[in-house]
Amino acid sequence: MAGCCGALRAFLFEYDTPRIVLIRSRKVGLMNRAVQLLILAYVIGWVFLWEKGYQEKDSVVSSVTTKAKGVAQTNTSQLGFRIWDVADYVIPAQEENSLFIMTNMIITVNQTQGTCPEIPDKTTVCESDANCTAGSSGTHSNGVQTGRCVPFNGSVKTCEVASWCPVEDDSRVPRPAFLKAAENFTLLVKNNIWYPKFNFSKRNILPNISTAYLKSCVYDAHTDPFCPIFRLGQVVESAGHSFQDMAVEGGIMGIQVKWDCNLDRAASLCLPRYSFRRLDTRDADHNVSPGYNFRFAKYYRDLAGQEQRTLIKAYGIRFDVIVFGKAGKFDVIPTMINVGSGLALLGVATVLCDIIVLYCMKKRFYYREKKYKFVEDYEQGLAGDTEQ
Amino acid sequence: MAGCCGALRAFLFEYDTPRIVLIRSRKVGLMNRAVQLLILAYVIGWVFLWEKGYQEKDSVVSSVTTKAKGVAQTNTSQLGFRIWDVADYVIPAQEENSLFIMTNMIITVNQTQGTCPEIPDKTTVCESDANCTAGSSGTHSNGVQTGRCVPFNGSVKTCEVASWCPVEDDSRVPRPAFLKAAENFTLLVKNNIWYPKFNFSKRNILPNISTAYLKSCVYDAHTDPFCPIFRLGQVVESAGHSFQDMAVEGGIMGIQVKWDCNLDRAASLCLPRYSFRRLDTRDADHNVSPGYNFRFAKYYRDLAGQEQRTLIKAYGIRFDVIVFGKAGKFDVIPTMINVGSGLALLGVATVLCDIIVLYCMKKRFYYREKKYKFVEDYEQGLAGDTEQ
Amino acid sequence: MAGCCGALRAFLFEYDTPRIVLIRSRKVGLMNRAVQLLILAYVIGWVFLWEKGYQEKDSVVSSVTTKAKGVAQTNTSQLGFRIWDVADYVIPAQEENSLFIMTNMIITVNQTQGTCPEIPDKTTVCESDANCTAGSSGTHSNGVQTGRCVPFNGSVKTCEVASWCPVEDDSRVPRPAFLKAAENFTLLVKNNIWYPKFNFSKRNILPNISTAYLKSCVYDAHTDPFCPIFRLGQVVESAGHSFQDMAVEGGIMGIQVKWDCNLDRAASLCLPRYSFRRLDTRDADHNVSPGYNFRFAKYYRDLAGQEQRTLIKAYGIRFDVIVFGKAGKFDVIPTMINVGSGLALLGVATVLCDIIVLYCMKKRFYYREKKYKFVEDYEQGLAGDTEQ
Repeated sequence: MAGCCGALRAFLFEYDTPRIVLIRSRKVGLMNRAVQLLILAYVIGWVFLWEKGYQEKDSVVSSVTTKAKGVAQTNTSQLGFRIWDVADYVIPAQEENSLFIMTNMIITVNQTQGTCPEIPDKTTVCESDANCTAGSSGTHSNGVQTGRCVPFNGSVKTCEVASWCPVEDDSRVPRPAFLKAAENFTLLVKNNIWYPKFNFSKRNILPNISTAYLKSCVYDAHTDPFCPIFRLGQVVESAGHSFQDMAVEGGIMGIQVKWDCNLDRAASLCLPRYSFRRLDTRDADHNVSPGYNFRFAKYYRDLAGQEQRTLIKAYGIRFDVIVFGKAGKFDVIPTMINVGSGLALLGVATVLCDIIVLYCMKKRFYYREKKYKFVEDYEQGLAGDTEQ
Repeated sequence: MAGCCGALRAFLFEYDTPRIVLIRSRKVGLMNRAVQLLILAYVIGWVFLWEKGYQEKDSVVSSVTTKAKGVAQTNTSQLGFRIWDVADYVIPAQEENSLFIMTNMIITVNQTQGTCPEIPDKTTVCESDANCTAGSSGTHSNGVQTGRCVPFNGSVKTCEVASWCPVEDDSRVPRPAFLKAAENFTLLVKNNIWYPKFNFSKRNILPNISTAYLKSCVYDAHTDPFCPIFRLGQVVESAGHSFQDMAVEGGIMGIQVKWDCNLDRAASLCLPRYSFRRLDTRDADHNVSPGYNFRFAKYYRDLAGQEQRTLIKAYGIRFDVIVFGKAGKFDVIPTMINVGSGLALLGVATVLCDIIVLYCMKKRFYYREKKYKFVEDYEQGLAGDTEQ
Repeated sequence: MAGCCGALRAFLFEYDTPRIVLIRSRKVGLMNRAVQLLILAYVIGWVFLWEKGYQEKDSVVSSVTTKAKGVAQTNTSQLGFRIWDVADYVIPAQEENSLFIMTNMIITVNQTQGTCPEIPDKTTVCESDANCTAGSSGTHSNGVQTGRCVPFNGSVKTCEVASWCPVEDDSRVPRPAFLKAAENFTLLVKNNIWYPKFNFSKRNILPNISTAYLKSCVYDAHTDPFCPIFRLGQVVESAGHSFQDMAVEGGIMGIQVKWDCNLDRAASLCLPRYSFRRLDTRDADHNVSPGYNFRFAKYYRDLAGQEQRTLIKAYGIRFDVIVFGKAGKFDVIPTMINVGSGLALLGVATVLCDIIVLYCMKKRFYYREKKYKFVEDYEQGLAGDTEQ
């Protein structure tokens, strides 16, 4: 009891601190301080000020809506004079984070269920029915072969297929793009972000933006960096591509909205940064299935109530709005982790200097003898003897 | 060789531990222990227990499907008596993480390609053809001007445009909302989450939920917090808005599903938490392009085979299902990092006390002399002299 | 002044290093080294080599496009012989990260606005008008009740509803699936990823893939692990399910693309890994609203200009492309944090050995007396007396 109580008192009322050898040496002293300074500079300057190691981080949660505006007119032999508006060229009418704008198309009108000759290619051209196998259907074929070989035109015969007839001939993509006027369409991007960990939310339509400004402005990296309305042509050019080239075969444009926020500072300084990147790389050497396109159909009934459709292979540009970014805010944990490891690093200074002092300097033996106190161990001694 | 071997033996069989001054002082002892206690409390209590610093974290990977149910009837002069079901008011029919429900609309029937007067506004009203420039088309115009100035109605003349005619007049939004009955529609949200790092997956339809319950239940924060079926009206109200107001001009509702899981505990405790937030802020001061709407068309053929369309400007509420959260599970790395920095912090106690003992206490010289052993360096001595 | 200058010189030119007791003891020495070795092994082997603790991490930003190919033929009494191509079975025509392929359907042709008897179930069957309440409409009903009770067929009477008539009867799902041929359709997935922090981007169509190869290849985990074209049937089977079963009621398939990249190595080693997972769990015990389906309609005009529609309840498989992964690259911060905590841990070795040496060994008093130097404090002494 008394012993225990004494131990407790000892534990509480004793203070132990390491004994230090204090070497008065210019060389070593300066070196030691220098090393410590470096480490301090690193910990404070880099980890804390530059990398903001004292901040808790959170990733963005975002919601996006888009709205396109613009009208184009075309005049072709097939369709005659025609006006295209949003309801015509945006497919589907709405998406969550992206918007597809049709810039080019191959249109096949009045298709009906039936049988007709395939488009000629090395697999479909035939001499006689022997070349066609009924019921077969390749990956790229438009229908199921009936097994008959029929004239596609005066010169060439191809296998007949059961399909929507006449079959689509997408061998030639219109150039220039059918809706090249899309270059001047505008795209309004509304983005609402949220940092759950800090319960901080903001819109890309900043509070100081007036309605009047929004009605007229167009995004420009230099003059209007916070206007959320983009000219399609400009977006593509900012990414270093030609809109008219891209419009022909279509593609994917990334509209990147970067929200890097330091929430230790005013919320008004947390601003979106827009950048543009083409997401479907077009390297000439191997442009495998280049651009972006898909097929859709409008279904009709003819007078007989028979189902008809207009098949459209839509080439166009899909604008993906990619929102990303991190917010940082002071927090105790990361701070302490960095302080802790910083202190541990300071220890390195002593270790380094010790090595130099005790192994490299000519007066090392003198220093060693000062730093160390040797305690012989009997066993050890005997052990040593036995080893001789 | 022998020397090297000796060095090795020394390295292996020697144990060096710092020499300690043990000061028997109540003041310092207590202070020292107190500081150490604080640091320990912080490291263990806060970092480990509260912030779970011993856990590896992973973010959620999720997949969502939604399904709306409900029928509404309307009776208007334009459309007569009409029933609206899912196929009518959900556009597009399916999306990945969100669902749009049309609550209001401006419908323009039997549009055909042609020329007709623009809707009057400050840019389109004209006196004579001189006011209209052929081929021009503003951002907000419905077509391309023909250059003629034609009567819009008895009183006012506007520039004629080539477009889908008659042009849409969206100046007046119907109030109350056309499909105000949407308030009672229900929305089933199926969510399947996955934490790749821990290969842990779960659904928001919990194992203990019976089919019978699912058929009847409706989400309620208090009574049915795990029922994945939501009444639209309730969702909007939970976010602190009025459904009927929102229905008129549309908007975006975020259905947030939060999966914060502590995988060191039973998987059955990893549960979804639902919350609702309106993502398109409606601040009266600058409601720039308020709400949410888009245009789409249904295409027909008239008897002559001429293309017709019914243009619909759909106002409605888009429900974005936003799934987020983090899972934590014990892991060695973060634990060790925190232990390490914790230990390093313990060192701070000694540093602090040393400062007090050696600089602040009145018996500081006495202590210093005990703690330090001064080693003069000849060079240093000489250096010192030269400096005189 | 002189004092201050002296202090500065002292600070700069003094070097303090702890005094060490060097105990020559085999036991303790070996133990000490062993513990140090363990800690080193952990820090270097585990934290650095295995967990790559020296790397800065970043999560992937991704963009996906998909394209389906394939033709199916069906022959039913209702629709007769019919060919289905992409434009028919992909709904909507394009989505951002997923693609829906219709595999089964319940089609209700020539619906018009009107009144007709409900599908019989326990809520709709009636004896007389008394059983039907005008204007009521349940969650699962197809329309709004008119209050009349009309014969559904010879035997049974049901409440009449105002709705699209005739109402859909989805009681029986076609088995086998209507478009069972979808098993052989192919899906091309184009994925472009980006690591913003390292500004590193890559496509899943690798540079060494030739156009010819892409035209013919089909993904196979062993033979063609980098071919981005997937046979639908194979995808489902890889996830351990039967395509034909899944096709009947539909479901969600996750195509997971994992990009785990070590950017300290060659970029060409950063490769996509595909895996497949079914996201809608099908546990027999409670299959609440199993599979995946939705309704959409095609709208027509009959000769009288009356609106008609064909309602389609589409069952099918939605392929969600889930892209995830982390890239790591050497960075100073995490390295230093780990080094720091590693060093701190090394301190543990000394602590452990001290405990053993000073408390457990039989020569502990001998060692203690060597390690410690006791400094009596007068106050303390007095305090001690008073305590007697």
